[in-house]
This record gives sequence, C-alpha cells and structure tokens, in this order.
Amino acid sequence: MTTTPLKINAKRFHHMVDTMKTFGALPQGGITRRALSEEDRAGRAWLSGFARSQGLHVWTDPAANLHFSLDDRPACESQAVIMTGSHIDSVPEGGYLDGTYGVLAGIEALLSIRDAGITLSRPLEVVAFTDEEGRFGGMLGSQALTGLLDCEAARSFEDDQGVRLADVAPGFDIDMNRLADCARDMSKIAGYAELHIEQGPRLLEEQAEIGVVTGICGLYKLRIQFRGEASHAGTTPMHLRKDALTGMTRLHTRLPALIGAAPEVPAVATIGFVAVEPGAANVIPDCVTFTLDLRHLDLDALRQNRVAIETLVQTIARENRLEAQCDILSHFEPLPCNPDIQDAVAASASNRGIAAIRMPSGAAHDALNFRATGNVGMIFVPSEGGLSHNTKEFTKPEHLEQGVAVLADTLLAMANGASS
Amino acid sequence: MTTTPLKINAKRFHHMVDTMKTFGALPQGGITRRALSEEDRAGRAWLSGFARSQGLHVWTDPAANLHFSLDDRPACESQAVIMTGSHIDSVPEGGYLDGTYGVLAGIEALLSIRDAGITLSRPLEVVAFTDEEGRFGGMLGSQALTGLLDCEAARSFEDDQGVRLADVAPGFDIDMNRLADCARDMSKIAGYAELHIEQGPRLLEEQAEIGVVTGICGLYKLRIQFRGEASHAGTTPMHLRKDALTGMTRLHTRLPALIGAAPEVPAVATIGFVAVEPGAANVIPDCVTFTLDLRHLDLDALRQNRVAIETLVQTIARENRLEAQCDILSHFEPLPCNPDIQDAVAASASNRGIAAIRMPSGAAHDALNFRATGNVGMIFVPSEGGLSHNTKEFTKPEHLEQGVAVLADTLLAMANGASS
Repeated sequence: MTTTPLKINAKRFHHMVDTMKTFGALPQGGITRRALSEEDRAGRAWLSGFARSQGLHVWTDPAANLHFSLDDRPACESQAVIMTGSHIDSVPEGGYLDGTYGVLAGIEALLSIRDAGITLSRPLEVVAFTDEEGRFGGMLGSQALTGLLDCEAARSFEDDQGVRLADVAPGFDIDMNRLADCARDMSKIAGYAELHIEQGPRLLEEQAEIGVVTGICGLYKLRIQFRGEASHAGTTPMHLRKDALTGMTRLHTRLPALIGAAPEVPAVATIGFVAVEPGAANVIPDCVTFTLDLRHLDLDALRQNRVAIETLVQTIARENRLEAQCDILSHFEPLPCNPDIQDAVAASASNRGIAAIRMPSGAAHDALNFRATGNVGMIFVPSEGGLSHNTKEFTKPEHLEQGVAVLADTLLAMANGASS
Repeated sequence: MTTTPLKINAKRFHHMVDTMKTFGALPQGGITRRALSEEDRAGRAWLSGFARSQGLHVWTDPAANLHFSLDDRPACESQAVIMTGSHIDSVPEGGYLDGTYGVLAGIEALLSIRDAGITLSRPLEVVAFTDEEGRFGGMLGSQALTGLLDCEAARSFEDDQGVRLADVAPGFDIDMNRLADCARDMSKIAGYAELHIEQGPRLLEEQAEIGVVTGICGLYKLRIQFRGEASHAGTTPMHLRKDALTGMTRLHTRLPALIGAAPEVPAVATIGFVAVEPGAANVIPDCVTFTLDLRHLDLDALRQNRVAIETLVQTIARENRLEAQCDILSHFEPLPCNPDIQDAVAASASNRGIAAIRMPSGAAHDALNFRATGNVGMIFVPSEGGLSHNTKEFTKPEHLEQGVAVLADTLLAMANGASS
C-alpha cells in the first residue's frame, strides 16, 4: 500500500456515471436497461467509444462481454491477469448504479493508474458482463467467461416476454455456437475484485463508508407447499380445520430463531412469494405455496438451517394435520473472500481515512463465478436507504469516489503484490 | 308434537331431488346453476310445473322469488303465515343440495301434511329465494321479500362477468321498478324455519343426524393491510427488516387464542385471501393485504373479538416497525333462533328417535333476513365430509328424509302451536 494515495479523476468518473445513466433513463429517475435491449446497445456503444477515446483497448467475446484494458487482448489472455468488473444491464425500473458503478469504477481505476505512471506486474482487465440481472437466466456473461455456462441450455433461454436469447444474440454479435469459446483459462485469472453498491442498510446503519466483504453468502431457494382441506369459514370449528395457511404462518414466525438470526450472524431467511388457494374470504385455504430464500456465509450453517427448516415444515404439518412438501429450486455455496484481498481493501480505506467494516455480501454477484481462482474479493459502498433494484437507488458522489479509489488501490495491490 | 309421527312421501321427495339435480349438472357431479341463468330457468320451470301438478298454488313476486302453498296467494298475503324456504341457485361448481334441499323439503312437507289430512291454523308458504349465492350481491330475493334490499343499488348490480342484473331481469319477469313491492308486511310472517345441509363436519363428528340450530353467527369481514419496506432478501439483515408478511403471520398464529377458540365456543376466525407484494422470492414483502372473516354467536363477544384483533394488529405493527390498517368490509349481527322453535325441532327428533345436538350456524342463510319476525329457526342435516360449495357435496338419502320429516313436524308445531 502506498502511503501517498493514488488520485482518481473524479470529473472523468462522474462524466461516465452521468452519461451512462441517460441510457434507459426513466422520467421518475432510475433506469430500465435490460440486457441486450436497445438501451443496453446504446450504453455499450457510448462506453466503448469513450474508453477507446481515453486510450484503452476494448473488445468483446462471443457472449458480448465488453472487455477494457491498458493492455491488448492477446496480452490479457496470455498472462495471469487481475480482473475486475460487473454489469451495465439493469432490472426493470432499477437504479443507475447497480452493476454499472463497478464497471465505470474499474475503467476509472485503470485510467488513474495509467495517469499516475504506475507500472503493473500483471495486466488489469475490466469486464462488463452480459445479462447479470437475468433477462435470460442471470449471470450469463460471467458464467460464460468462467466456463460455468450450460451453453446447450442457453439455446432455449427466453425472457419473460417469450423473446429467445438465440433470436436477439446475432444483433449483439453473440455467437450461440461459440459461447463455449468465451471460457478463459482460469489458472490465468490471478484474482478478481468487484466493487458494488451495498444494496442494503448496514454501512449507513453502522456509520461506515467502505464494506470489506468477507464473502458472498450461499443460498438455498426453497419452494414449500402445505396442503390441507378447503372448507367453509363459518361452518368449520377451529379445532376441526386443516388450514393450509397455518403451516406457512407457524413456519414464518419461527424462522428468525430457527436460523439463529442475530445482528452479528450472517444468516437471513425470507418468504417473498406466497400463493393462497382458493383465495376466497370465506373459504379456509387448502393449499399455500411459497418460496423461502435462505442464505448464510458459512456452508455448514447454511446446510444445517436448510435441514432444520425441512424438519420444522414436517413437524408443523403433523401438528396441524397438513401435508407438506419442500423442494430445492436453486442453490449455491458461500464464497469466502480471500483474506489478502480483504486486508488490502481494509488497508486502503485506513490509509485514506475512510471508516470501513467487514461484512458479508448477502446478494450474489458476478464475482461468485470466480470461485475457481481462489482469489476473489469485493468492496461495498453505501446505498442510501438501503435501496436497490429501485429507481430511488442512490449513493453520494463522495462515497462513489471513495469506492473507486479503494478499488484502484486494491487492484494495484493484487497486480503488484505477493497474493495469489 | 304428535306421538304418531307424520309420514313423508320419500319417493316423491327423491323424485324432486333427482330431477332438480339435472338442471346444471356437471360431468364430475354437482351442479353449476347460477341465479338467473338458463339452468336456473329450467329448474324453476320444472319445479313450478311439478308443484302445480301436485295441487300446490305457485306464484312469483317482482324479485322472481318462487312461492308455493296449499293456500292461494291472497290467503298467504292477508293472514299471518308460517314460512319456510331456501334457494335453488348454486355457486359455480357447487352441490345439488345447498339451498335446493330446503326448498324441496318444504314442498314435500306441505304435501305430506296435506296428504295426512291435517288442518292448519295458519297457512304454510314455501319460498325459493332468488340469488342467495350472490351472482348479483347475495340474498337478493330474501332481502327483497323482507324489505331489506337497497332497490336503487340493485339497479347497478353486476355479476363477475360484468352482466347487469337490470339486463337479465326482464327475462325472468323481475321488475326493477317494482322490487320494493316484494316487501311483505313482516308482522304477518308469524315465523320462519329453514332446513339446510350443515356444510360443516360437526354433526358427523359428534355422531348426530339433526342439528337444532341455536342461532346464526354474526360476522365481521375485515380487510387488513400491513405495510413495511421492500428490500433485498440477501442484503437486509433480519433485525433491520420491515417485513410486511410478519404482520400477517404473527396475527394468524395468535388468532385461535385471541378469539377464545375451543370446541364448545361458537367463535371462528379465518384468513382466506392473502396478497403479498411485490411477490418475488428475493424481495422482502412491503405490503400484505388479507381478509379476516370473524364470526361468533354472541354479539358482545363478536364485537370484543373484533376490537381485540384491531388492537393486536396495531400492537404487531408497532413491534415490527410496520404500518397497519384495518377496515370493516361487511358486518351482520348474530341472530338467535327462537327457543320454542329449537324445542320443537328437538322434540321432533326425539319423537322420531333421531340423535340431535344443539349447534350454531356458522354460515349465513336466507333465514337471517327474517330477524324482524322474532321467530326464526333452522334445522341442519349432516354433510358428508363436511363438504359444501363443492361438487362432491353429499348427504345420505336417509338423512335427507329425516330432515324433511323434522321440518314438517316443526312447521306443524309453528302453524298450530302457541308460539309467536
């Protein structure tokens, strides 16, 4: 770590932020810039042009991931590189920072390092990954680049309007027959660091401005169904009911204790989707189906919580004369962040006099796909109101600038340091 | 009470049941015979013709209520009558007995009494009320007959397909300008008794075959809404959430204790409709809206329970940093059944060696509108499996026959006895 901190060009950085937020801008604020839309195309075109105008090499791969580097493509692909990135697509009615911030900050970090005349031992590469938000499945680009994409399955990916990825792909120079060629030699990605807005309330709640991410929480997405018997709300005494809603409500009230929830425990459980059938005011529900999103930073604890929930579901079913089923819809394991990267982030914040805390990432990010490098890190900056996936998403300019600086320091440490 | 029980004509009664269940019959069993549909028209036509063929007087009023009596219309409308009745319309995919049973049993009771050569001190009148099930609002016919219908509001009644009552009315000789003329002089309705399937599990659960109804439970239909804050299921620690679903689940788990639920307490509470927004697996709900159907046989207890729920809703909101609102969508007061009618029903069952229990009606029926007579009674027969509003609705033929006999005895006691 340098004790004379690297200086970033805040004006250049904000110019990128302010321009990018016009592509897909909504009247009420925020953006809708879904992956592979015309808004996405416009954003890609402007950003590529701007980066080239600043002297960066810019290229795309067969998944339309946009790459930026001070070095050319062959240099990046033949040596061990340090990578950073995120995405410039948004959810519908999303914010201007989610994803885009990490890409623009990466570009500014590269330019600042170049401007400072610093020599790098390893190339730095910034990637704007295609479709992180899941118009066509989610994390498409970072999965393709890390060799984790099911390229055959991708042929049938559709968005929620029934538009096929394969049909829009040619217009973005995505080659469905060459998606597998995106996969990089993971032994030559020496490390990956991603800067992102927190998308939660913790930094502001704890009066910190940089989050040193300790790891990305693992997840189980469960689909749980309780089945009882529909009957008349007036004529069925309480003790003779088989009320399917009872299953869900008993489970929900016990969830915080069950998962060991506490401010210092990186465990959360959420019931976000609920369908109650038949859904009439005077009919006792016979079927309640819901999702349970379960996360934890520790793999064993995550699994134990899943088993505890499955057990409780069956206990509640027995106690209330219901039937129950519990299915795993999706799962990924936690990814601990590399301690050296955590220390580099913390040292940068400390050198710059920025209050930092260590915290997990509850949300998944493109970073998750870089598990095989064994050298992943993440940095958070505050989200005002904890809001994200929301047109009101906002982070103060000075917080954004601090994040860029810490990212630049971290990438420098990774590129020139001993780690990995 | 006679000690030589009146004999009903089971063959004639079952002929009516078996024929009526063909109008709107569904392949899977049960019927769809919505009020003022072609199926309803066919059922009305057959039943009118059959009743006339058996020597009954049959007429309609401006609400298309179908009246049957041994006496002619002027005799019924000029003297104090004893009335029985129910409805022949059904819910979509409903059963063949709900409502229809009470009408056919009333007709059979009249014919049996006539066949036995018994003289009546007061006329007996059977009414098949129009639209009890609520294609156009519910209890339309019985409200019109008892003067409780808002005749102006009825002009804009629509079904769930947007069909207006005013448009179908002429085809059924309903005169929208003369609906108010249906209203009978309530001082000349000396009593009202209604026979119905239980639509619940209690009779079979308690091994009884006749329910002596002690009263019709009063109801509050509440609409409750908890509002919190939508945020990311992964990034928002449990202790920082404003999860609107928590409001509903905390309330639901405490409901049975709150209303003093116990097998011997005529109190029920049901959450049957639930909407969770935004409804995504990875988003903490910011708004949960649901209905709460609250019933009790005792008016004071019903009101106390409503207040207790409203108070608990606000307490839960405060405890969980939510906002809450509670609205009354509908309300009716409990209607205690006349003790003399209860005793007449019990005596009939006892004379006939039929096991009977006293029990409330949790469901509302046309009987509710006869409160002003001060002389209302109801009789229940078992529903197999407690099922109703269901194509599988079924009652054993012998149970149906027992109900007809007890209704006939009860009407006789009301017409010739001292009560009212």
